[in-house]
Amino acid sequence: MKKFVNDPANFVQEMMEGLVLANPDTLSWKKEFNIIYRSDAPSNDKVSIIQGSGSGHEPAHIMAVGKGMLDAAVPGNVFAAPPMEYVVECFKLMNSEKGILHIVNNYQGDRMGWDMAREMVEAEGIKTELVIVNDDVAVEDSLYTVGRRGVAGNFFVIKGVGAASEAGAELGELVRIGNKINDNVRTMGMALTGCTPPAKGEPIFTLADDEIEVGVGIHGEPGRRRDKMNTADAILEELFEAVAGDIPFEKGDRVGLMINGLGGTPISELYLLYRKAALLCKDHGFNVVKNYVGEYCTALEMAGFSITLLRLDDEIEKLMNAPAEIPIRVF
Amino acid sequence: MKKFVNDPANFVQEMMEGLVLANPDTLSWKKEFNIIYRSDAPSNDKVSIIQGSGSGHEPAHIMAVGKGMLDAAVPGNVFAAPPMEYVVECFKLMNSEKGILHIVNNYQGDRMGWDMAREMVEAEGIKTELVIVNDDVAVEDSLYTVGRRGVAGNFFVIKGVGAASEAGAELGELVRIGNKINDNVRTMGMALTGCTPPAKGEPIFTLADDEIEVGVGIHGEPGRRRDKMNTADAILEELFEAVAGDIPFEKGDRVGLMINGLGGTPISELYLLYRKAALLCKDHGFNVVKNYVGEYCTALEMAGFSITLLRLDDEIEKLMNAPAEIPIRVF
Repeated sequence: MKKFVNDPANFVQEMMEGLVLANPDTLSWKKEFNIIYRSDAPSNDKVSIIQGSGSGHEPAHIMAVGKGMLDAAVPGNVFAAPPMEYVVECFKLMNSEKGILHIVNNYQGDRMGWDMAREMVEAEGIKTELVIVNDDVAVEDSLYTVGRRGVAGNFFVIKGVGAASEAGAELGELVRIGNKINDNVRTMGMALTGCTPPAKGEPIFTLADDEIEVGVGIHGEPGRRRDKMNTADAILEELFEAVAGDIPFEKGDRVGLMINGLGGTPISELYLLYRKAALLCKDHGFNVVKNYVGEYCTALEMAGFSITLLRLDDEIEKLMNAPAEIPIRVF
Repeated sequence: MKKFVNDPANFVQEMMEGLVLANPDTLSWKKEFNIIYRSDAPSNDKVSIIQGSGSGHEPAHIMAVGKGMLDAAVPGNVFAAPPMEYVVECFKLMNSEKGILHIVNNYQGDRMGWDMAREMVEAEGIKTELVIVNDDVAVEDSLYTVGRRGVAGNFFVIKGVGAASEAGAELGELVRIGNKINDNVRTMGMALTGCTPPAKGEPIFTLADDEIEVGVGIHGEPGRRRDKMNTADAILEELFEAVAGDIPFEKGDRVGLMINGLGGTPISELYLLYRKAALLCKDHGFNVVKNYVGEYCTALEMAGFSITLLRLDDEIEKLMNAPAEIPIRVF
């Protein structure tokens, strides 16, 4: 597997350096702890929002650091939770009188490190709260989780609490908002190919030319089943029904609809998939008022996608429409 | 090669339908002629800006239709020029008293169709002018061109003439601006893999596990040579020097720097490449005042990238900083 890499041991740090070189006015980098943070954070006027997990899911989470989104992200190596001392340092660096909200995707490795770090910093008087994201409907428990996994729905939780914290919301209010968004968002993904962590040098799994993995996790962990390749519409429809049937979403619901590429799928194919998803929303009587087509939470260069539905009420819709800025941009 | 596709014959149209479903308020679609256009275009107060070429380069060009960018795009099938009658229809649909500027990437198929269409519509009294983009320094003539190819530098030409036309510039002035930007932009690309047009069903070329194609075109046409795989920094440096040495760019130049993914390369690797490009700019005394990291002009799911340098003066920098809106967005 050919990848753009120098020494695989430096992959994450060189990516971070590129990100900071591209955003010299807005981002800072505490290199020895893998922390990317807003240069104007923390502020005692605002709850700090932080997240950390494995690398390899870009733009999540280091490229989601910016006004109205995360104040800091602290990733580990590719598909590996950040070491506890990095997380402790991130809490200390982002300490605000209003407190710190940390968002954790539900993976055991991430949760353990964050729980331990949180105990340590709370003993030092830092005020923290936690929101857990577990939007993946594919499986109830998985290789790396008790309960459901946290995947692309994470974007909406960050967007919502980021907007509310920018508007001055207190820590407890942000916990309510984060949990509410998590309760209203559902995702499922599938893969056409595996992906290759640079330090590993070989794919974490391999699919035959006519095989797909339905319900895959964002680290390539198994999903519901291996299946035969099918048309785009048939694949999309299975995932759509699993997601839509889960809360369940109902006729008349206002929704946000996301087609998220997993890293190696071109945007042309994502729009072809969006087409079917939008038509199915129409069939189900869901009113799509916001849409998202692109890469939000990936698995390196994996070919595949996930579909996310977010149920909107006035409060969530307003938060999704609030201004936000992140390092990745077109212009 | 697994792709998200239904009937390959409908690939382009279904992608277009997805794009229009995702942008119901701003985009319109003339289905029978493959034309995607701003719903508020044309206007007699503004020169219309149009472009067409093969599909498969998304977001170029249908996803570059919007305020301050293109008024319409008229693609053909994947890697195939649009039929002349589609182009004629696009001219007619975008007719404005101030005229129409059409931008053509320098490929023979595109140029022929556009030249013929232009003769036809001018005979009917439609005022048109042409800007040719030929920013690719890899080869002087190529499989599909006399002279250099037009590739990712196209984005900057669209952005510049789009901004100027929005501000009321006349047709002749837009020709001057478009040619000036083209004269100041240089690009070169390389590939780790080929790519598979849906209707063809097999890769247009194949590279061994240790091979790369240096100087590749955006349809997979050959570049300068096949070479052995190398580190990201070494690959980047060769392309950077070819691009920087071409005008040549000089110490003290203000530049825009783009790392453009070709479709299958994850954003993590693009930022790793950007790192080296930014460091080389520093070494050369180029002052990077704008940067662009992402996908701008692709070749389906090809893994690879191109690097573009744009020399800025006050006029071009102002045009690059002007507001613009396109269908693809993060929020």
